[in-house]
Amino acid sequence: MSVNSANKRLQSLKHHLAPNDNPHFESLRLHRRPNQVPYLSKLDPLQFLLRSAMVHAQKIAVLHQGHSYTYLELSDRVKSLANVLIETYNVKPGDRVAVFCQNIPAFVDAQFAIPAIGAIIVPVNTRLAAKEVDYVIEHSGSSVLIVQDELSDRLSQASRDVLSHVIHVADSENRMQDPYELLIAGSKNRLSWNDFPAQTDENATISINYTSGSTGKPKGVMVSYRGAYMMAIGMAIQDGLSSKTVFLWTLPMFHCNGWGFPWAIVMVGGTQVMLTKLDYTRIWKLLKEHGVTHYNGAPTVQNEICNHPDAVRLDHTIKAYSGGSALSATLIRRMNSLNLEPTQVYGLTETYGPAVTTYDVNTLDDYTDEEKYALLARPGFGIVTSDEVRVLNATTYRDVKPDGKEIGEICFTGNLVMKGYYKNPVETEKSFRNGVYWSGDLAVRHADGSLEIVDRSKDVIVSGGENISSIEVESVISQLNDVNECAVVAGPDDKWGERPVVFVAVKKRSTLQAQEIVAHCRDSLAGYKCPSKVIFIDQLPRTSKP
Amino acid sequence: MSVNSANKRLQSLKHHLAPNDNPHFESLRLHRRPNQVPYLSKLDPLQFLLRSAMVHAQKIAVLHQGHSYTYLELSDRVKSLANVLIETYNVKPGDRVAVFCQNIPAFVDAQFAIPAIGAIIVPVNTRLAAKEVDYVIEHSGSSVLIVQDELSDRLSQASRDVLSHVIHVADSENRMQDPYELLIAGSKNRLSWNDFPAQTDENATISINYTSGSTGKPKGVMVSYRGAYMMAIGMAIQDGLSSKTVFLWTLPMFHCNGWGFPWAIVMVGGTQVMLTKLDYTRIWKLLKEHGVTHYNGAPTVQNEICNHPDAVRLDHTIKAYSGGSALSATLIRRMNSLNLEPTQVYGLTETYGPAVTTYDVNTLDDYTDEEKYALLARPGFGIVTSDEVRVLNATTYRDVKPDGKEIGEICFTGNLVMKGYYKNPVETEKSFRNGVYWSGDLAVRHADGSLEIVDRSKDVIVSGGENISSIEVESVISQLNDVNECAVVAGPDDKWGERPVVFVAVKKRSTLQAQEIVAHCRDSLAGYKCPSKVIFIDQLPRTSKP
Repeated sequence: MSVNSANKRLQSLKHHLAPNDNPHFESLRLHRRPNQVPYLSKLDPLQFLLRSAMVHAQKIAVLHQGHSYTYLELSDRVKSLANVLIETYNVKPGDRVAVFCQNIPAFVDAQFAIPAIGAIIVPVNTRLAAKEVDYVIEHSGSSVLIVQDELSDRLSQASRDVLSHVIHVADSENRMQDPYELLIAGSKNRLSWNDFPAQTDENATISINYTSGSTGKPKGVMVSYRGAYMMAIGMAIQDGLSSKTVFLWTLPMFHCNGWGFPWAIVMVGGTQVMLTKLDYTRIWKLLKEHGVTHYNGAPTVQNEICNHPDAVRLDHTIKAYSGGSALSATLIRRMNSLNLEPTQVYGLTETYGPAVTTYDVNTLDDYTDEEKYALLARPGFGIVTSDEVRVLNATTYRDVKPDGKEIGEICFTGNLVMKGYYKNPVETEKSFRNGVYWSGDLAVRHADGSLEIVDRSKDVIVSGGENISSIEVESVISQLNDVNECAVVAGPDDKWGERPVVFVAVKKRSTLQAQEIVAHCRDSLAGYKCPSKVIFIDQLPRTSKP
Repeated sequence: MSVNSANKRLQSLKHHLAPNDNPHFESLRLHRRPNQVPYLSKLDPLQFLLRSAMVHAQKIAVLHQGHSYTYLELSDRVKSLANVLIETYNVKPGDRVAVFCQNIPAFVDAQFAIPAIGAIIVPVNTRLAAKEVDYVIEHSGSSVLIVQDELSDRLSQASRDVLSHVIHVADSENRMQDPYELLIAGSKNRLSWNDFPAQTDENATISINYTSGSTGKPKGVMVSYRGAYMMAIGMAIQDGLSSKTVFLWTLPMFHCNGWGFPWAIVMVGGTQVMLTKLDYTRIWKLLKEHGVTHYNGAPTVQNEICNHPDAVRLDHTIKAYSGGSALSATLIRRMNSLNLEPTQVYGLTETYGPAVTTYDVNTLDDYTDEEKYALLARPGFGIVTSDEVRVLNATTYRDVKPDGKEIGEICFTGNLVMKGYYKNPVETEKSFRNGVYWSGDLAVRHADGSLEIVDRSKDVIVSGGENISSIEVESVISQLNDVNECAVVAGPDDKWGERPVVFVAVKKRSTLQAQEIVAHCRDSLAGYKCPSKVIFIDQLPRTSKP
């Protein structure tokens, strides 16, 4: 069923004019919990859902596997899940609830239901290996996990022992066979919105997003309700979202809470089309037949979309945010020829996702093609809800000269900056020096204020839009007895941009083979983190570092 | 010069690629004043100007009388005015600076420059009579006034005595003869953005907006930086504003800070086309030739636009917010036939302007014309940055049943509610009872949650979108010796919607004539507040009120 036909069918019910057929209305209302100050209310993405469930009641909010959920149905699902979390699983405000799912409706439900009861969302990267999942669950101290069956083979017994409860989502087309669907359908909904123990402070933590930075273990980025709200607002304005938006979930929702889009699309009353895998045949079908208007992805994804045999010029323009690494002029040209309008974005998990976007393409008409593509590859400027993004000298803490030459580190302040790393004061303090957040990425500043990245943070490899910590990979390889020392670096890769390459020095008389090293990595690390190439050397080059 | 040709000319300068020809960039930067907490920054509309001056540097921000100002030029003007206010006129944080201007560039400058130095904007209704202007200036305790020559005949000596300084704006096409232009051009700009003594609390007062409510004297509505920011965001998302927006200033900018549009248009990098008078020949010329995309006005204004001899169907859709009173089906139809897309909005000065908008027209395709227009005349739902708007029983404080029948009073909470009335604790306390703001307007709630107004606040007459306090008019008429008693009520009017009608009982043997009463009113009141009709009666009917 297409979005349009589903919307048409539901509109024909003429819900709005019939005065008594909306049994949900009363249950939507949050207002009985009075504001402490009448002229202040907490910036909270949940407000977007409750408003859209009223204003866009019969519009399709979520579309998945031929099932569609209206905004009223979505709000009911969210309320049911929130009830289940409290009543069945005893989740309390501040508790962590992990979500290990692909882009499925349960994940959208969770983005609202967990904060609705004052608990904290912990999205888990679906590409992680079992041991990495263990780390995230243990470090976050999650008591409940929502896991998709497809991924549950990577849920170890150790993790199950740590968790109080595991909620299984089959994601089966037959919802009557899906334990998750049965669970929320069976919820007694004893509690309504006003009864939930919501956080009252807009600076409370709404989500802890684990990211591989330059250090060994993933760090838990704490983001706030206020930041989540401002990110959703920023995305809506920058990306021109509206009630006509049909958003295709090519971006993993575990990434920085889907860059704020689960909240932003709900705010404007648009439709989210789910996608569990990057199946490009299916993507092209959806782009052509479902009136998709927006999607997001790394250059790898954009490239695969362009190179697919089904690629044809579309009869409507689709906007695509592209982040992770720079878009090449060739790729921008190819996308334009298909009626895809890419926008280069830049950001980190620590900045809620893309806090920086490139030039407004409409202002570049008078440039030559070559100039235009050079400009569009720049990350550009902070978004409307961000502070000015700065480039600072890491020693003097002064802004670099805006001459396109002096190199410094990209620094952020403002409402789109994380609160800190969960249970990691050392790394938090390292990241916030002199009152700003230090991204680790090196850039120059042009005379017009735009940023251009010259080098990413050392020790981070970006493969298909995912960060890989070289130190993390090195520490896994170093566990092997025969390894004396090793170094993981970024090797160029046509498809993924970069892949990890390892230089290994082994003990004398060792018979360790490359495939054994890779197999050992596969045991502890997500596939994308495992070396694509192993190079044996006698010893690592020594630097003259004091 | 049209917006497009001006933009094209400037774009051709290829500013962005030349690394050294932007001498303003350094001066735009606000960031040297560090945030107190790195992950929080004050919600402040000034951020929008500083960002757009960087991102949209060479785009036309303001167009007036053949002159255009780019975003860089606008930010320079604002900085110059801020410098002048501090250095020449000694304005301190918290001081009130009144603005008595039509929709001219100086007013846009003031909307940013006054808060940039932590002072408070006091917009003065351009339709007020001298005595009313006196009241606003005296009550607000404004120390400085920016006044347009066209209006200065209504600036009394009494007001001049109260004010420390008066800044005159000639608004002449020859800027070299305009004292305002000479003043800001001559500013030494000793202080840059970082040197201004800005407010650090986002809940500080940014503006005091005087409004005629149901009581006699105008009340000063205090609004905050946070609210102004959230209103601008709300308007941008609801009205679909973008960098392609060309906004025509048919709405007076003194009204609730122009419903947040001076800030919202700057946020998205759109263009504001000034308009000093409702000259409909000129309006049609601008609609047709300047690529206008959005304008706002009361139904009276919409009606005049539709009925003008130059009215033709436009080749592009123009969005028009309409507030003050309900749009009739006839008017909506007529507007649609001209490719104007009206949206019914509702709000008060106390809610920053339109905090409520009607149904999304795209969701109403399947309704009959009659049903559709009935729905589109409803004020509808709170905007995205508003709390749910409620209808409460004024005695029990409980929500009315959403049955389309039970009548209650429209109540607001949240970030789009004023902080209170300036120096008026009695009225403030009356308006905020039980933790909500009481609008005085009566409405029902439909089953889908939408509001429908059934009666406006008693004692308020709405004429051409302006509030008139019947009590205020009565108290002026009562000053006449011959008047025993009088009552002012709303009389229907084809053009203005309503006009005040007065019932007067005069002393025996009085020879007082209707025109004498009107002339007396004209001496103290804005023209639109003066009675259109005077009816002499023996005595007012008595009610059985205990």
